Amino acid sequence: MTETIQLAQKLIQIDSVTPNDKGCQKIIADYLSPLDFKIENLKFGDVDNLWARRGTESPCFAFAGHTDVVPTGPETAWTHPPFSAHIEGDMMFGRGTADMKSSIACFMVASKRFVHNYPNHKGSIAYLITSDEEGPAVDGTVKVVETLEARNEKIDYCLVGEPSSSKKLCDSIKNGRRGSLSGHLTVKGIQGHIAYPELADNPIHNVAPALEQLVQVQWDHGNEYFPPTSFQISNINGGTGATNVIPGDVVIQFNFRFSTEHSPESLQESVHAILDHHNLEYTLDWNLSGLPFITPAEGELIQAISKASKAQLGYEPELSTGGGTSDGRFIAPTGAQVIELGPLNATIHKIDEQVSVSDLNQLTELYYQTLVNLLAE
Amino acid sequence: MTETIQLAQKLIQIDSVTPNDKGCQKIIADYLSPLDFKIENLKFGDVDNLWARRGTESPCFAFAGHTDVVPTGPETAWTHPPFSAHIEGDMMFGRGTADMKSSIACFMVASKRFVHNYPNHKGSIAYLITSDEEGPAVDGTVKVVETLEARNEKIDYCLVGEPSSSKKLCDSIKNGRRGSLSGHLTVKGIQGHIAYPELADNPIHNVAPALEQLVQVQWDHGNEYFPPTSFQISNINGGTGATNVIPGDVVIQFNFRFSTEHSPESLQESVHAILDHHNLEYTLDWNLSGLPFITPAEGELIQAISKASKAQLGYEPELSTGGGTSDGRFIAPTGAQVIELGPLNATIHKIDEQVSVSDLNQLTELYYQTLVNLLAE
Ligand SMILES: [Zn+2]
Ligand SMILES: [Zn+2]
Repeated sequence: MTETIQLAQKLIQIDSVTPNDKGCQKIIADYLSPLDFKIENLKFGDVDNLWARRGTESPCFAFAGHTDVVPTGPETAWTHPPFSAHIEGDMMFGRGTADMKSSIACFMVASKRFVHNYPNHKGSIAYLITSDEEGPAVDGTVKVVETLEARNEKIDYCLVGEPSSSKKLCDSIKNGRRGSLSGHLTVKGIQGHIAYPELADNPIHNVAPALEQLVQVQWDHGNEYFPPTSFQISNINGGTGATNVIPGDVVIQFNFRFSTEHSPESLQESVHAILDHHNLEYTLDWNLSGLPFITPAEGELIQAISKASKAQLGYEPELSTGGGTSDGRFIAPTGAQVIELGPLNATIHKIDEQVSVSDLNQLTELYYQTLVNLLAE
Repeated sequence: MTETIQLAQKLIQIDSVTPNDKGCQKIIADYLSPLDFKIENLKFGDVDNLWARRGTESPCFAFAGHTDVVPTGPETAWTHPPFSAHIEGDMMFGRGTADMKSSIACFMVASKRFVHNYPNHKGSIAYLITSDEEGPAVDGTVKVVETLEARNEKIDYCLVGEPSSSKKLCDSIKNGRRGSLSGHLTVKGIQGHIAYPELADNPIHNVAPALEQLVQVQWDHGNEYFPPTSFQISNINGGTGATNVIPGDVVIQFNFRFSTEHSPESLQESVHAILDHHNLEYTLDWNLSGLPFITPAEGELIQAISKASKAQLGYEPELSTGGGTSDGRFIAPTGAQVIELGPLNATIHKIDEQVSVSDLNQLTELYYQTLVNLLAE
């Protein structure tokens, strides 16, 4: 068994359900410390964060990731216990195998080999590890980035180990993310008995034409980097439960994943215009969880990864801005080139999350070659 | 204090929350028995019902009503304890004061006086009292009516004591009811992550255009007897609670109050046509809780009441088919003339339900005169 797999098992066997780290970061720090990384434990609120850096020069290349995992769901539904890291054939099972403790193990082994082969490498190698990526993400990466900015410490290249691959390892890397803007809408009416609708004002009826319009809008057509902006309602709830009562309000939660063709302001304006057009009485609270960002294909980071993949696997990854948000959204605004490269994402957040052992060994090599391409003397 | 008020208090002070009778019907039976009513206690399931009849001849005039009351809600919100039947000025407070234990007290005193004055009256006087009007209404009036029909016993005139009055006593009586048809609609989609809408199928989005259409339809314009058919959505629920998940289905409950311009079948057809037009995948369960019925203005029952009201109060009641359903819907299909006449309905089912003491004394007199007009020798 390779060192990557041993380290991955060690991390996966810790039940660090978000926002708990439960000692994972100590394992990482203890591994990096003898390799001349300077270790900083940055605790914000209840959240453990690790910043480790070898060297002080530019460019600074950072591996980024998280030690927390999403809850397991019913453990009895798992084929193997979720914190066993049990290996069967080529597959290792467990919560965090794909998202993303295995990637961290690959970071570590790749770093060790690189430091051994290139002790006087260019620039710096860093680690930005949080235990609050799957949770509210308030006291994690965003706070570490603020700390670095406050002392003028800059990340130039950031490789986030999130599972970016779709059908085979490194077939896709994320070089950007759509923005994410959520709305919590309460449309008000007047409660009443269903037999006396003239004394009530049904908010479900009032909002129906506005909803019909909102779901029909083509917000934009996307662009070279981004798919079209998407509007989705996640929750709608109105009614007292009684079948003879017209409810007093209806609550609707929705989310935009938006391209650079839109700003949060332009989306907000459009939604308010539709609601106002239908003369609704409503309150609407907005929450912006990330602006869209893009890392250009011609930048050094993507070039280094593509070259490594071509040489090792025979193909170059496709660039994508689809899918969910990650902590890359907090790092990109500092001007860093940010990409996500990790194992297959088919089983993440699911029962029987799993990862291919041979993929992980390949991934270690890809990370190693990326370091070589960027920082070898 | 009149006998009506004493009897009303006695009944109201029993906390007979639906479907419990808690001895109310025994009080009624013990009162009627010495007046030569034949008493039958008809228990179906857990529900107590009372059928009492004086005489065997036609026409049979029946008082109908219920001893159960709706729950009080938070008792501390009441100005006076809900089962105190406390009187302040002209108002008596408590659950069941308006809906409808006071009406039953008026029935009793009116009957006693009538039997005393007209011991050899025409036809019969009957009581159809249930304790399951406010609940599922499965083991109540409908079962008593079935029992009577099975033995060929027929009600000719039925006066339901439900609170029909609006601004002043007997300003309105109900001479019919709209039909009530409910639907429980589940629209299916495919659950998924909100960042990958192309892998999901949002049922809220799918149903929005159909809802918009359903709430805009003018179903009919009503007619001489009925207001226009009304469609109301009482509940809509879709979503897992998580803001990043597209739900797998959305559940919508709705109700029609319909005129004789529509049948249940024609309404069902229209709804299915709209849902099918939008290519929805759905299940839809229907529940018909009553067909529309009408008692003609020129019939003996309405004539007797109008004459009594005109003589006693100086005005005749307006006829109405608005408002909610009552047990009249079970009695009307047997061919009986059915009307509802009772106190003001402004506070029914609310905190601080109340009734006017002087109205109740007037109502006893109205019921008495109605008996005189119909059954005096
Ligand atoms: Zn992750
Ligand atoms: Zn009632």
